[in-house]
Amino acid sequence: MLKIGIIGAGRIGRVHTESIMRYVKGATVKTIADPFLGESTVEWAKGMGVENFTKNYKDVLADPEIDAVLICSSTDTHSPISLEAIAAGKHIFCEKPIDHSLEKIKEVMDALKNSNVKYQVGFNRRFDHNFMAAREAVKGGKIGELNVLKITSRDPGAPPVEYIKVSGGIFLDMTIHDFDMVRYMSGDEVEEVYAAGGVMVDPEIGKAGDIDTAVITMKLKSGALAVIDNCRRASYGYDQRLEAFGSKGQVAISNDTLSSAVISDADGVTAEKPLYFFLERYMQAYVNEINGFVEAVTQDKPVAVGVEAGLQAVLIGVAAKKSLELNRPVKLSEIKF
Amino acid sequence: MLKIGIIGAGRIGRVHTESIMRYVKGATVKTIADPFLGESTVEWAKGMGVENFTKNYKDVLADPEIDAVLICSSTDTHSPISLEAIAAGKHIFCEKPIDHSLEKIKEVMDALKNSNVKYQVGFNRRFDHNFMAAREAVKGGKIGELNVLKITSRDPGAPPVEYIKVSGGIFLDMTIHDFDMVRYMSGDEVEEVYAAGGVMVDPEIGKAGDIDTAVITMKLKSGALAVIDNCRRASYGYDQRLEAFGSKGQVAISNDTLSSAVISDADGVTAEKPLYFFLERYMQAYVNEINGFVEAVTQDKPVAVGVEAGLQAVLIGVAAKKSLELNRPVKLSEIKF
Amino acid sequence: MLKIGIIGAGRIGRVHTESIMRYVKGATVKTIADPFLGESTVEWAKGMGVENFTKNYKDVLADPEIDAVLICSSTDTHSPISLEAIAAGKHIFCEKPIDHSLEKIKEVMDALKNSNVKYQVGFNRRFDHNFMAAREAVKGGKIGELNVLKITSRDPGAPPVEYIKVSGGIFLDMTIHDFDMVRYMSGDEVEEVYAAGGVMVDPEIGKAGDIDTAVITMKLKSGALAVIDNCRRASYGYDQRLEAFGSKGQVAISNDTLSSAVISDADGVTAEKPLYFFLERYMQAYVNEINGFVEAVTQDKPVAVGVEAGLQAVLIGVAAKKSLELNRPVKLSEIKF
Amino acid sequence: MLKIGIIGAGRIGRVHTESIMRYVKGATVKTIADPFLGESTVEWAKGMGVENFTKNYKDVLADPEIDAVLICSSTDTHSPISLEAIAAGKHIFCEKPIDHSLEKIKEVMDALKNSNVKYQVGFNRRFDHNFMAAREAVKGGKIGELNVLKITSRDPGAPPVEYIKVSGGIFLDMTIHDFDMVRYMSGDEVEEVYAAGGVMVDPEIGKAGDIDTAVITMKLKSGALAVIDNCRRASYGYDQRLEAFGSKGQVAISNDTLSSAVISDADGVTAEKPLYFFLERYMQAYVNEINGFVEAVTQDKPVAVGVEAGLQAVLIGVAAKKSLELNRPVKLSEIKF
Repeated sequence: MLKIGIIGAGRIGRVHTESIMRYVKGATVKTIADPFLGESTVEWAKGMGVENFTKNYKDVLADPEIDAVLICSSTDTHSPISLEAIAAGKHIFCEKPIDHSLEKIKEVMDALKNSNVKYQVGFNRRFDHNFMAAREAVKGGKIGELNVLKITSRDPGAPPVEYIKVSGGIFLDMTIHDFDMVRYMSGDEVEEVYAAGGVMVDPEIGKAGDIDTAVITMKLKSGALAVIDNCRRASYGYDQRLEAFGSKGQVAISNDTLSSAVISDADGVTAEKPLYFFLERYMQAYVNEINGFVEAVTQDKPVAVGVEAGLQAVLIGVAAKKSLELNRPVKLSEIKF
Repeated sequence: MLKIGIIGAGRIGRVHTESIMRYVKGATVKTIADPFLGESTVEWAKGMGVENFTKNYKDVLADPEIDAVLICSSTDTHSPISLEAIAAGKHIFCEKPIDHSLEKIKEVMDALKNSNVKYQVGFNRRFDHNFMAAREAVKGGKIGELNVLKITSRDPGAPPVEYIKVSGGIFLDMTIHDFDMVRYMSGDEVEEVYAAGGVMVDPEIGKAGDIDTAVITMKLKSGALAVIDNCRRASYGYDQRLEAFGSKGQVAISNDTLSSAVISDADGVTAEKPLYFFLERYMQAYVNEINGFVEAVTQDKPVAVGVEAGLQAVLIGVAAKKSLELNRPVKLSEIKF
Repeated sequence: MLKIGIIGAGRIGRVHTESIMRYVKGATVKTIADPFLGESTVEWAKGMGVENFTKNYKDVLADPEIDAVLICSSTDTHSPISLEAIAAGKHIFCEKPIDHSLEKIKEVMDALKNSNVKYQVGFNRRFDHNFMAAREAVKGGKIGELNVLKITSRDPGAPPVEYIKVSGGIFLDMTIHDFDMVRYMSGDEVEEVYAAGGVMVDPEIGKAGDIDTAVITMKLKSGALAVIDNCRRASYGYDQRLEAFGSKGQVAISNDTLSSAVISDADGVTAEKPLYFFLERYMQAYVNEINGFVEAVTQDKPVAVGVEAGLQAVLIGVAAKKSLELNRPVKLSEIKF
Repeated sequence: MLKIGIIGAGRIGRVHTESIMRYVKGATVKTIADPFLGESTVEWAKGMGVENFTKNYKDVLADPEIDAVLICSSTDTHSPISLEAIAAGKHIFCEKPIDHSLEKIKEVMDALKNSNVKYQVGFNRRFDHNFMAAREAVKGGKIGELNVLKITSRDPGAPPVEYIKVSGGIFLDMTIHDFDMVRYMSGDEVEEVYAAGGVMVDPEIGKAGDIDTAVITMKLKSGALAVIDNCRRASYGYDQRLEAFGSKGQVAISNDTLSSAVISDADGVTAEKPLYFFLERYMQAYVNEINGFVEAVTQDKPVAVGVEAGLQAVLIGVAAKKSLELNRPVKLSEIKF
């Protein structure tokens, strides 16, 4: 039974706690650490079977019974806690992004080199039934050689501007998932990025120095093209689609809905909106990714999404940011760190 | 150039006139006969290139230049005019049903036996792109042996009660198309019918002695089952669908729409309603059926939908009517004529 | 914490055990009883946290700590064990059907009258996301007055003939779910049934005195019509669809798939087949129904699917059987018990 | 009756001839001019009712009975013949593009200024049922303010390399339709273009100095973004889709198919491929556009797609070409002519 410590009991920390306590075999949450740990969280966690709580994550790192930690705290703490956890010999599942700074991710990578620590990054979409089916089709040769990969990724609504301000910008906060998806789907590396974008949802986002809508084009090593379109607001819900087009055909995935009900009446033929919220949309993917992490640790297998994936997605994000600023395509090789 | 006479210039007569003058090669409408021929119709027809008009269909039958007639007059005149036209040696395209009376259809059949006249019945759906694709799938073995055939056929709105009163009832007026479709799709014959139905759309239809909603189950010679559901009113338009299920799989056809546009917004994901009216839905099928008739006449080939098909569909309708009255399954062999 | 005893550790007994141990809050399986209890089952159940096992279900009924039982044993034992469990004052969740005999169901109903026992019947589809969405649409007036209800229910493959022989026939074994669905969707009662059917899948099923393919038409009290089509084999998987058509429109539900992936290539535009097996298709519904049962017991609320629903579905099934034998519509009032 | 001269009897010239002779009221083709006019074309055209033929288009321009011409000859002759036709006072429908050279288009524009000639450009997609439905949704405010417009436009197969060599390159030959669609859908103007592309279909296309696959991003005056993806080959047929996303929602259009038939079997749930060829896909659009042109001429109304639209699409194409060469976004204002 793998004993796990949860560092950060916000939304995503709770999701993982619930996954582990309910659906993941061979693992349990021993301790939850959160400096702002509230009573309701404690009560909820006790109901799930968690018994230990602390406000200091160092307690978790110091506990010799705990084999692995999930770093679910705020982004700025990901890399420092990662370094401490590596030093403590704990296996690590770290939420994305590892850091906004490539240098700091590099430090984590260096630290990992001299350790036996497993390090998985929280790119949950790789574990989603739709994206996995698309990847299998691509990998299995169903579309032949990949030519054009198109990803649509729109949130139902923008987060508070306070969040935007510390988010690292849309590319590191939101598009980062899509950048990872480009690498996952193609099995290829991005060489060059061109980002166009604007403020179309909320002028406050613009005042905070960010954009809320973007189209990002990428050239891959193989010569294939990828294009992502993002928006912080879609009136009809969380829009997560993808098309991979190649020499033999195309695979496309569309949104999940609560039910397949379709109503035909005088107003038209109306199906349900996509699931609204990322937690409901990706709940099973969250379970799957933690299952994968636990399996990697307990069976000493490589993690499905390692630190390199964490680095590359941020690297593309940094290049996209630079492209937007300079209004020209930016090669990843231009980004020094 | 096949010269055609149109007998009856109501809605369907005009549809066929337009088909011939615009889309059918090798044929032209020489004369239109209609006792109530109005000026607007004449003007419209002249615009299409028709030059001769008469209030008496006998003029058409007496014209030696006219090789073929389309009988588009009211149902009660179909069989008597058919008999006269056969006697005059004209090839005949007759709108459905040939007659409400099986005996009168029999008379037409007998008259045809000693003639060289081509006789096609107006079951236009056999010439529709969707129904043809389904039939090809069935015939081509894509679904294996047919087990269950399901037809949904709903009108957007009920006709006037005055029409209902002379329509022969829902089974001979509306379901007759679906009965023919059962034979066409299955390539099989109906042996027994059970009809359930009621008045759910308009009580006036009930007062006129008819029903407006029905579910009709049929046993075919092969042992396969067929089921039709009808309604005189569908709020969302003209609903024409079919599923043929067999040992290897299923083929299904759905409704045509004006466009493929789908709008996603806060209310849902909404596609267009089916085309509302049978004329717009089946316009191409009307052209196709007349093309087929002209080809059969000019190239001396068998017609695609002969008098036997006209008889069988009415026979099933008569059995369905009896089944509804007696509330029991009725074998076609019980119907004497 | 509600302590539950599982009686019968076959496929469905295991499903419910897993539901309770993993997903149902406020309940736990204390004991599993099964006369043929194997080591692998015990080991599996221990892994889930179950600690007590017995070959004799009477041990469960005698345990004062156990408040509720799930009767998942073979159909012929459902009603006798129900009676014993009622006598023992245990709340009961009983798999469908309660019995093939209406008299025996009546005995259970009589016994319940003088007890405080909750009794829920295992019609899991009432707890499925698609069927619930359709029901909500009907109940919420989205389709106006219900006119025609159509249910397609096809298994991916026929069970072994040995199972068929003791199954009570297709209507009591398979269609029973659809009969319940007619009542659930319509909120109405069936008055008359007409069943047509045949042996199209496997002649052995015919030799066993059963059919494997059927179309069943029903008249409801309101005058609405319902029609079910069943087949024991669908090459493309488990086919579970429904259309409810009414004065204002229609609601339709279609099958669930493993993913939304659609591949377009030289062969066509191909989506995934429906989920193949009822366990994967209805897993969440099984969780939901047990959650509902536990809530009914612990909060003393009425069960969602009571003994009356269990009786009515069997009653319709018995009428359907008689209809098939006599080849005529059969009123439910004709069935005496 | 508007008398029309067809200049160029290749594929598209024949399409328009057929449209006019069969489906367009109030117009007829008096003369067809083509230097390579073959017997089979003459025979075919006579069958349609055309009576005059010449190898010299100047005969058409000199005929005082002819009011309007359709310029369907090779691209390099579009602008010189346009100038001659304007001088001759003929109304003009000119196939796209007017010219590869912006200067030459400018000459045509200048000549038009001092004339009463109607000049329509052959952007047929503006007359397609799907694109029109999408435009209506955008114009009618259904999606709110436009944020991101996405167009997918893929041919079923590449044209011969000999054609590629004189085509002006993918942007002026193929994407030009999509550039016009961006303007039509948005009701806005393009300010800046970034084009990425490569040779993924056929190396011979690369040797001819062209690309066969592209992703083009555009910034519009309003700030909205547009992105087009093109490929010269789609294994599954002619792929013509569009999504317009805005503050209130999204409208999407998908491909047309020959029928709605869907086959479910052991291989999946398979719908038909898109219509393969642009002529079958857009046949009705061709009829509509000529109808519109005839109406503009006979009723002295503005044409739906004027010379300015012809210029702008080429202008965007020239900017895209420059962007690809320089690998940077190019503003339309940079293009001098």
